[in-house]
Amino acid sequence: MRRVAVIGVGDTEFGELWDSSFRDIGIKAGLSAVADANISADNIDALFVGNMSAGRFIEQEHIAALIGDYAGLARDNIPSTRIEAAGASGGLALRQGFIAVASGLHDIVVVGGAEKMTDVSDEESAVIQSSAADQEWETVLGATFPALHALIAKRHMHEYGTTREQLADVAVKNHRHGSLNPKAQFQREITRETVMSSPMVSSPLRMFDCAPSSDGAAAVVLCPLEQAKKYTEVPVEIVGSGQASDYLALHHRKDICTMEATKAAAKRAFAMASLAQKDVDLAEVHDNFTISEILAVEDLGFFKKGEGGKATEAGLTGLEGEIAVNTSGGLKARGDPIGATGLAQVVEIVTQLRGKAGKRQVKDAQVGLTHNVGGTGATAVVHIFRRA
Amino acid sequence: MRRVAVIGVGDTEFGELWDSSFRDIGIKAGLSAVADANISADNIDALFVGNMSAGRFIEQEHIAALIGDYAGLARDNIPSTRIEAAGASGGLALRQGFIAVASGLHDIVVVGGAEKMTDVSDEESAVIQSSAADQEWETVLGATFPALHALIAKRHMHEYGTTREQLADVAVKNHRHGSLNPKAQFQREITRETVMSSPMVSSPLRMFDCAPSSDGAAAVVLCPLEQAKKYTEVPVEIVGSGQASDYLALHHRKDICTMEATKAAAKRAFAMASLAQKDVDLAEVHDNFTISEILAVEDLGFFKKGEGGKATEAGLTGLEGEIAVNTSGGLKARGDPIGATGLAQVVEIVTQLRGKAGKRQVKDAQVGLTHNVGGTGATAVVHIFRRA
Repeated sequence: MRRVAVIGVGDTEFGELWDSSFRDIGIKAGLSAVADANISADNIDALFVGNMSAGRFIEQEHIAALIGDYAGLARDNIPSTRIEAAGASGGLALRQGFIAVASGLHDIVVVGGAEKMTDVSDEESAVIQSSAADQEWETVLGATFPALHALIAKRHMHEYGTTREQLADVAVKNHRHGSLNPKAQFQREITRETVMSSPMVSSPLRMFDCAPSSDGAAAVVLCPLEQAKKYTEVPVEIVGSGQASDYLALHHRKDICTMEATKAAAKRAFAMASLAQKDVDLAEVHDNFTISEILAVEDLGFFKKGEGGKATEAGLTGLEGEIAVNTSGGLKARGDPIGATGLAQVVEIVTQLRGKAGKRQVKDAQVGLTHNVGGTGATAVVHIFRRA
Repeated sequence: MRRVAVIGVGDTEFGELWDSSFRDIGIKAGLSAVADANISADNIDALFVGNMSAGRFIEQEHIAALIGDYAGLARDNIPSTRIEAAGASGGLALRQGFIAVASGLHDIVVVGGAEKMTDVSDEESAVIQSSAADQEWETVLGATFPALHALIAKRHMHEYGTTREQLADVAVKNHRHGSLNPKAQFQREITRETVMSSPMVSSPLRMFDCAPSSDGAAAVVLCPLEQAKKYTEVPVEIVGSGQASDYLALHHRKDICTMEATKAAAKRAFAMASLAQKDVDLAEVHDNFTISEILAVEDLGFFKKGEGGKATEAGLTGLEGEIAVNTSGGLKARGDPIGATGLAQVVEIVTQLRGKAGKRQVKDAQVGLTHNVGGTGATAVVHIFRRA
């Protein structure tokens, strides 16, 4: 397999983008990544698109062809492929792009992710998001996506003494990071009190424990590492890629406080990269709920099982901590347009490894990790990046 | 890139399978392919799943994780990835599996496709199927999927003198083939008169010009060619894989009588295979409407532009013809469970190349081709197979 580098990144603002259509934001992010990579449309060999539910959010399937068309790639009949894995759609699209370049089949590949979530009502959006969980065992019985994560949170508090305040600390930290990111959906700091007094969604999770619904898109450009210097001064190599699945419904799992798919995907990515957790300077992890980030930092191996809450409270996951987690603001503050999320994570890691992250720059960042989850953990994909 | 072989195939009946759920049929096809390949679940390195619109047909996204789970693959956290490209979802899933094995990343890969279409009303199904076309330029204005194909048919009749009877001949031939296939949804012969007197759907297309709505699933098992003899006496090599896209909306195309994506995908697949059209013994092509098969046999290069209707009328695409087209019965008679269709095509080709197609066996079949289309031609994927 050939070595693969990221040579361009781009994204849109995340938020309620009512003046832009799905195709608008998809193209905007893609063009921005293509410009960043110093290539033109003529250079592109293939397109991969991550998206969870355009069929239901905008009543349009076949969106890879749509984006390819509006990106001007139809003229040369450039292949375009959509990947769906609920919240992990973006990360899995990246993995397909990585494999396509690594295989030798394609040289220049654009991987994009997009979701337009705010064209439907909040109630409808909640139903659509819950279709990432098991429809027959969970959703149909009224177990919404926040309710399933609330079960995880309660059990984690029971098993490990994780506190309500520690959950809040995840949101406080990620809003602090978001306040330093001009692209974030929420660019203001909050306090523990903001979280603890916000409306209850599903006990113990309150509104500020949940990532928002967002419109947005993000994209990256990949090429073989050996060609990367032609396009950019600072290529970022994808040194590890790991993907794993787990039981779709929570009740089938041995332990709902552990995401086995995250553990397996991380193990595979670290093995491919020949790196260990201590080598990682920063990570973008899947904090769709505050409890999710606590599980993530444990299951990725940055902290022991049960110590994610304490580590967060102690500031070990902040910008100056042992491992800087979600410097972009994460899904919580950067925003969570589902299909775009996994690619927005890559945009942040590449920006950091290039040393271009401004006020939120992690000092001397050399190795970064992305962690993207589908459903309540039935799909996980981990990538590891190194400044080349 | 490594050479890749198909070592197992399996499928379900196609039809109105009201006693089976989506997960039932997905697992049934997968297990059948796994048994055919003489492997067990422990051998499987990855799963790819083609599906168009489970989000709308059964309100379940994230179906790769679902199928992986119910196939018993969650225990070992086997990665599972869904591909969507409307009608081309199955063929594109095959291509991702092919690339994954060719790259060296995975050895044994199962690729499945499934769709459960009959749990919604016919009206709802029509709306969902139309979301393969351009929602903002076509569907929202009432241009249904049959109506868009009716435009193509009318233009083809105008440009090339293709007759209403020749369109009917496609359906007659494919029903004849279906009558020889015990797995086909429709196993009875029809006549020109059956087609010509069936209810009008969108002029000139009548009910018997349209593939049915179907439930069903199909799956194949891939591995590196050099390992294939361990599992099967007759490996079938995937010698060519080509994918291409086109403008999503018909009005953006230069010529709606030509599917440029089919032409480009075929060109790429033949180039990879170092083969020409004359080398192909049989082809499964995307006959979701009778006019689609006429375009397909032209754009794949088996007949000159405009001569697909005449060739069909002359019997050149029958079992004993120059090129045997849709020996399975095609989408028209074998059935068209959207995400499964591209894989069912592979099941037929492999069965034929093994010499196991019974009454519909093509004599001395050595090379076969599959052609899978998304939307009205915005995605096309072509694979070429050779008995190894």
